[in-house]
Amino acid sequence: MTTLIIGNSRTSEMVGDLAALTPAQLRAGGCVAQRMLWFARDGDVLVLPFAPPPEYRDYVTGLTGTDPDTLAVVVPPPGRLGTEILAPDRLTDPGFLRRLRHALGDQPPHEILAVYKDVTVTGLARALAAETALPGYPFSAQAGDALVNSKAGFRALAAGAGVPIAPGTVVTRPEQALTAVTDLFDRGHSVMVKLEFNGGGYGNEILSRTGGVAPAGAPRVEVLPDRAAVLSYLERRWEWLTAGGAHRLVVERFFPDSTTLYAEYLVADEGARLIGVGELLMEPVAIGAVLPAQTIGPQTRAELLDGAQRLVESLRVLGYRGVVSADAIHTPDGPVLFTETNCRLTGSTHVHLVLDGRVVDADHRDERVFLERSGWAVPSFPAAVERLAAAGLGYDPTSRTGVVVTSNEVDADGTVTCCAIAGDLAAAEEMHRRLGGLGPENLR
Amino acid sequence: MTTLIIGNSRTSEMVGDLAALTPAQLRAGGCVAQRMLWFARDGDVLVLPFAPPPEYRDYVTGLTGTDPDTLAVVVPPPGRLGTEILAPDRLTDPGFLRRLRHALGDQPPHEILAVYKDVTVTGLARALAAETALPGYPFSAQAGDALVNSKAGFRALAAGAGVPIAPGTVVTRPEQALTAVTDLFDRGHSVMVKLEFNGGGYGNEILSRTGGVAPAGAPRVEVLPDRAAVLSYLERRWEWLTAGGAHRLVVERFFPDSTTLYAEYLVADEGARLIGVGELLMEPVAIGAVLPAQTIGPQTRAELLDGAQRLVESLRVLGYRGVVSADAIHTPDGPVLFTETNCRLTGSTHVHLVLDGRVVDADHRDERVFLERSGWAVPSFPAAVERLAAAGLGYDPTSRTGVVVTSNEVDADGTVTCCAIAGDLAAAEEMHRRLGGLGPENLR
Repeated sequence: MTTLIIGNSRTSEMVGDLAALTPAQLRAGGCVAQRMLWFARDGDVLVLPFAPPPEYRDYVTGLTGTDPDTLAVVVPPPGRLGTEILAPDRLTDPGFLRRLRHALGDQPPHEILAVYKDVTVTGLARALAAETALPGYPFSAQAGDALVNSKAGFRALAAGAGVPIAPGTVVTRPEQALTAVTDLFDRGHSVMVKLEFNGGGYGNEILSRTGGVAPAGAPRVEVLPDRAAVLSYLERRWEWLTAGGAHRLVVERFFPDSTTLYAEYLVADEGARLIGVGELLMEPVAIGAVLPAQTIGPQTRAELLDGAQRLVESLRVLGYRGVVSADAIHTPDGPVLFTETNCRLTGSTHVHLVLDGRVVDADHRDERVFLERSGWAVPSFPAAVERLAAAGLGYDPTSRTGVVVTSNEVDADGTVTCCAIAGDLAAAEEMHRRLGGLGPENLR
Repeated sequence: MTTLIIGNSRTSEMVGDLAALTPAQLRAGGCVAQRMLWFARDGDVLVLPFAPPPEYRDYVTGLTGTDPDTLAVVVPPPGRLGTEILAPDRLTDPGFLRRLRHALGDQPPHEILAVYKDVTVTGLARALAAETALPGYPFSAQAGDALVNSKAGFRALAAGAGVPIAPGTVVTRPEQALTAVTDLFDRGHSVMVKLEFNGGGYGNEILSRTGGVAPAGAPRVEVLPDRAAVLSYLERRWEWLTAGGAHRLVVERFFPDSTTLYAEYLVADEGARLIGVGELLMEPVAIGAVLPAQTIGPQTRAELLDGAQRLVESLRVLGYRGVVSADAIHTPDGPVLFTETNCRLTGSTHVHLVLDGRVVDADHRDERVFLERSGWAVPSFPAAVERLAAAGLGYDPTSRTGVVVTSNEVDADGTVTCCAIAGDLAAAEEMHRRLGGLGPENLR
């Protein structure tokens, strides 16, 4: 039962034009791709942008109980964008395909798990005669994943499913955007504009008629006091906002002081299975998550799951299969408003499917809180693990508590991402606080 | 029970950039808009690009049993594109909105029937406080109709619903198109490329490695003997094929000598109702239709309805409401392959909902064949009606047979469109043959 695991952590439908990524963004994408090691089981084949550092590989497989010597890692030759991400040109290289077939024992894999199922991945499945190994292949092979990951398409899907969304609309021309922004301003609201294809809040901007609005879910706030300022902003940013006219733009009311929730599902032919409910930490863009979500009551949870299940059922009828995260905000006044669906592995899927169920075994998962944060500055990955051990903070399989280093971004920005696993949120927060003291660097 | 009827016969999601339409195309769009008169009942309010010629209005209402004096026609002021079509700028004019509200008695209409429900129409519904009068308003107000009228989106929708489609794919870059076309050529097939948004076959082109392929469903065939010719074609036509990079392109296997079928439905909250099954006459683009379809056996009809019902159910779950035509080809080798869904009033909706059911009453509809063709050259609309009467060919409400002039294109290209209603196809064809002899012009 070989699974082919593909670390295509950055695709244009996730983050926009790949050629526009900075070297640092490319490098971060490569580090995130290595996180696919969490999903590996004995005998699996991984396609990664570069060979994982052995110490990270051994750390992850040590916690998941996987024998690293049974894993095959196939790295395609460098592409036009280099070696950091699995861009389409790398995944279609004929020599790579030969080596991949060989690693698979000249058999189609039993299953294919990719971060994102664009037509490059469906083409790879076809080249391996493994169409049936990729869940939802027929839909994905016709570029369906672009439809269900579009933030513009989301608004129609949600409205059609009767799911609450923020007031707003989808526009294709600057004059429509001007009207939509001005209408919301005139009603006393700030605005969030969202690129059709991007992630983590990086494709969003908040527009406000007045100062003093704190960004959340977007890196920054543009203060636009009058119509002329809105017009000037749209003229200046239209190329970016619409990827040069190729994409649509979402214009929505912005709700300050909201929390960001999500419900994550695995969608199969016969139905969808809830795999987790979490809260994203936005500072002001996603830097972590806590799961299960801690700040919501039963009513809010019920609203979240009701809407999420409707969305997921629409996606299932459309033909999408695999992981879906239905994201929402919980506004200060109470209602849950849905903001997007991510039809791909998310930044928390490894926590939901591996840390919560394999690292912490199923018998104990209900007694644990998982608090993951990026940005612990360390000199190296081994140093991070050593410091945790020395402080008695490392994950303990017996107590099923402690800190797991989930992702290794040392080569990108000198940090790692850690997931604190504890009996309650306060204990998990205390673990992260203690991390900040484990060295000259502070928690960022 | 006032219905607001909107003759927005040309929208950018139906025919591409409106500013690129020729004066003749604009004029033809205006003539088609007048066809909305067929749907009118006593007391309805019509928004039309120009006032209908009184003789056409009286002819149509005479056959539907509507009192023309009870109808209000509201014509917006000319827009940037003139007076021929209801472009968005005309439908948002404040003076027009005031007159429309007045015509509606300062009440929201009970229902809104538009050719196409883009955000201009949902904005109009909102301006009239008539959101609930427009079926599927929530979905349409979030630009959902663009998703379900996209020929690219269709391929994912169909694949996800398990509905058979022509081999092919959806591309966004020239090199992807080159691969897709070459792959199909290498397997010995010709290719149809389809613009994401267009209609009637005008957004399609057939590509063939060799000559001798007769066009069908597209105006013409491009012969591209080698890879260099394909590349040159794609470079030359890319701007048109993708609307300047804004849209995706469908690349499919072309099936010569196929017939074009469709099943048309009315989609409501609780389910969908079949309103007709027809065959399009392609010469080489759509010039008419025969309904019920005459050339298909029970097996083909069952395949058509099975696939169409799956598609329509997916569209219903997505949130679309209103008319859907699921189009397919019946290939010479047998299978039915679906080609697109049109989520709007089609060129046959007036036949299905009015000629078949109101002009021919419901008790007799099952005994009638409707054969509609465009292109009868006449000096004027009244002359067409007179010639029919003189030849004893005009529609006879007693026998429920004869020729109905359904559409008046005299001011566009000197022709009218006629629907022959008869007890069988041969008799309907004989009526069209006789039309050709009724004057110096021949049936085109």
